Amino acid sequence: MSIENLGFETINLGHGSGGELTRDLLDKIIFKTFSNPYLDQKHDGSIVQIDGKMAISTDSFVITPIFFKGGNIGELAVHGTVNDVAMCGAIPKYLSLAFIVEEGMQVSEFVKVVESIKKAADESGVLIITGDTKVVERGKGDKIFINTTGFGAMHPKANISVQNIKEGDAILVNGFIAQHGMAIMSEREGLEFESTIESDSTNLNYLVNDLLDEFGDKIKLFRDPTRGGLGTVLHELANDVSVGVDLREIDIPLEKQVAAACEMLGLDPMYVANEGVFLTVVDASIKDEVLALMQNDTKGKNAAIIGEITLEHPNKVVMQSLIGGKRIVSPLVGEQLPRIC
Amino acid sequence: MSIENLGFETINLGHGSGGELTRDLLDKIIFKTFSNPYLDQKHDGSIVQIDGKMAISTDSFVITPIFFKGGNIGELAVHGTVNDVAMCGAIPKYLSLAFIVEEGMQVSEFVKVVESIKKAADESGVLIITGDTKVVERGKGDKIFINTTGFGAMHPKANISVQNIKEGDAILVNGFIAQHGMAIMSEREGLEFESTIESDSTNLNYLVNDLLDEFGDKIKLFRDPTRGGLGTVLHELANDVSVGVDLREIDIPLEKQVAAACEMLGLDPMYVANEGVFLTVVDASIKDEVLALMQNDTKGKNAAIIGEITLEHPNKVVMQSLIGGKRIVSPLVGEQLPRIC
Repeated sequence: MSIENLGFETINLGHGSGGELTRDLLDKIIFKTFSNPYLDQKHDGSIVQIDGKMAISTDSFVITPIFFKGGNIGELAVHGTVNDVAMCGAIPKYLSLAFIVEEGMQVSEFVKVVESIKKAADESGVLIITGDTKVVERGKGDKIFINTTGFGAMHPKANISVQNIKEGDAILVNGFIAQHGMAIMSEREGLEFESTIESDSTNLNYLVNDLLDEFGDKIKLFRDPTRGGLGTVLHELANDVSVGVDLREIDIPLEKQVAAACEMLGLDPMYVANEGVFLTVVDASIKDEVLALMQNDTKGKNAAIIGEITLEHPNKVVMQSLIGGKRIVSPLVGEQLPRIC
Repeated sequence: MSIENLGFETINLGHGSGGELTRDLLDKIIFKTFSNPYLDQKHDGSIVQIDGKMAISTDSFVITPIFFKGGNIGELAVHGTVNDVAMCGAIPKYLSLAFIVEEGMQVSEFVKVVESIKKAADESGVLIITGDTKVVERGKGDKIFINTTGFGAMHPKANISVQNIKEGDAILVNGFIAQHGMAIMSEREGLEFESTIESDSTNLNYLVNDLLDEFGDKIKLFRDPTRGGLGTVLHELANDVSVGVDLREIDIPLEKQVAAACEMLGLDPMYVANEGVFLTVVDASIKDEVLALMQNDTKGKNAAIIGEITLEHPNKVVMQSLIGGKRIVSPLVGEQLPRIC
């Protein structure tokens, strides 16, 4: 989009007034970018036809910096919610989109974010159907916060429920962990590594859909370890269902460079945020087929079976370490990396 | 809710980490307050059964101050979205709820907001089914921003569409305008009036539902003039449909005290925000019955027929003033009152 003819270079309070300037911002940037029959009604809301079960998920994105290696807050806001809907066993279809912009934000940056949202939404197969734009005074926000709420139709074969989890079930992840968190961290600290660490921000809905097509109710759980990382999600799982989790450190996909960066900064990759990783718990009988399907997909080529469900130590996540010992993966207390998503 | 045993008095960055502190905040305040079968799944999203057409609307609330005469940001976040769904001709059923909290917010204030949300949701007949909580550093937010996204089933008799609007249709509002904006303004400026001006923040869904039950597709439009006020919404209507609007100033419900406050501050009540007002465009044949139904309801007791649709001056809103002259109601440019919702 050319921003030269917009007539404004920064977002100001008037763009959040609900009056002419708001309409100007919407018409010239938002409606123009996302135009579709739902949004074009320009009503207070949108009307969609749904039949059956629907998954709904919401997330606000407050990441800083808003542009980072491998992505920006716009695409993250799409991927994050698309993935949360997919984790319910649903096929994402619609997103709402709400901005809180800090007065003085450059329109060039705003447009870049909006265009990223459009691209990520197209790639994920979702439509932006309704939205909202607010502007707060300088110093009362931080450039831009984005909320997306996602809606998807449940996959007909999905029967996702932690209640179905039993001893011996296999735990898999689709790829390298801790990439997103370390990309943001290196950006913030201005760290240079041998090669650039990029965020893994991506949409996981197609791979999840393929898994459900193929394996249906033998898949017991999908969960994406974003904030809090893999360790926190596994710990929650163990406690929600009162089962134990056995992990093998050697099998957890972790890039050397990310491992080195974590060590340097004193961070445990088990608690570092991901934006393109999911874990799944599946019946042991299909684990190798699930692994093969995942490895055959660009979003799962580094997939691995990382552990099993056990009843030997309920509520505990136990990791067999690289050097052979065992340690308990405790829950994350406090904050490892603020504003990571 | 007693906040003495929570173990924390302020919200800190750890409450947004996704780890133990986040779980603590959710379990002790959020899940405890809103407990219902959807939310209790504690999954990434919620699964609901829908059949047919559904209206979806999203809004972020950034109002300051967060507590004001007649309401607070919590109930506003419920009413605002419930009303937007109702304006589509739908019956609101579910809300998502996402917080962006500034580090250092008092837990006592947070709990007060959460409890208001619960009360307003109960009164409006909607369930909070999924949510999100983020925390930003001190100085990067302003106490609390709230996003709600609402879902409602379309009323079976609704056929809301600006395309159905024709010459002679009557325009009604349900009550006094400009109350919300002037309540916030007097709060900010520390102004004292003879009696307190209170926000009109309330849910309009039951009255809208009753109107649809009774008059079905003879109702052509509902719209709530929040940001930008009645003038902006009427101006948008005129331009979206290429019709003219004739208004009679004498018929527009405006409390004396609010009128005086507007005059004192140099504000035009036509552009001041409302949070409990809606306008409706109806077939001329039913206008008196519609008025009677509205006046019979606590949310519409000050309802009035304020004007008509005309083809004489398309795209223009023309007001017959109190002293008999006519003036054009131009669109609001810029910002009259920032952060009013």
